[in-house]
Amino acid sequence: MRAALEEAKSAARREEVPIGAVLVNKNGEIVSAQGNRTLELNDPSAHAEILCIREACKLAKAQRITDCTLYVTLEPCAMCAAAISFARIRRVVIGALDPKGGGILHGGKFYEQPTCHHKPEASHGLLAEECGQILKDFFRKRR
Amino acid sequence: MRAALEEAKSAARREEVPIGAVLVNKNGEIVSAQGNRTLELNDPSAHAEILCIREACKLAKAQRITDCTLYVTLEPCAMCAAAISFARIRRVVIGALDPKGGGILHGGKFYEQPTCHHKPEASHGLLAEECGQILKDFFRKRR
Repeated sequence: MRAALEEAKSAARREEVPIGAVLVNKNGEIVSAQGNRTLELNDPSAHAEILCIREACKLAKAQRITDCTLYVTLEPCAMCAAAISFARIRRVVIGALDPKGGGILHGGKFYEQPTCHHKPEASHGLLAEECGQILKDFFRKRR
Repeated sequence: MRAALEEAKSAARREEVPIGAVLVNKNGEIVSAQGNRTLELNDPSAHAEILCIREACKLAKAQRITDCTLYVTLEPCAMCAAAISFARIRRVVIGALDPKGGGILHGGKFYEQPTCHHKPEASHGLLAEECGQILKDFFRKRR
């Protein structure tokens, strides 16, 4: 999660919403690390999680990357929650929760739906305060 | 929707799940047209709708493409439903419904959630039979 926080901080320096994600394989090695780039890439799908998945899948030459754990500083939205499931990622470790836009424990709670065909394990609260504080600082500055 | 069906047929020829999408601007001009490419690109997020949005946003040099209508042969999944909302697309016209994987009228019904901050108009049933038949034919052949 420390590496994901670093990605979030990099995103903030690029004026992007500071959320970071890191994918780790079963040996504990980081296979991809990304922060939000929706502004830079003009791509509303360029959330940290999606970029991480795309990078790892490209490296693996596969559209499924099982046995991986995704560390992400903020609860993934509905789009990312579904993409994580499609990529067959085994486990998601969330920093801060997102009652306004989250899609795992909030909103449509994708993993609890019959339309979800692979349910990753999900936990939250790891370095939650730091993960949330970066976002608070970012939005305070922009007001 | 005819153009979206053509994209779905192209996808089938590439051995991809045959779903197609087309984005049309307020003047009725097609701004992007795509079919599924998850296998080809090794990218579980490369659904027709996401590729369409990425292409149109890149052309518009913006992460929001308001005043557009997305025609898609199958009800978008949770991932695509959210991406459509993030891109601020005004209207979604769906061919066939998808009770197993849909995310607008099924599953988490993203547009009905308080975590959805832009709700596109959505309608369904346009050329539904043709849109569904391509998928049925595709999966029958693979069995």
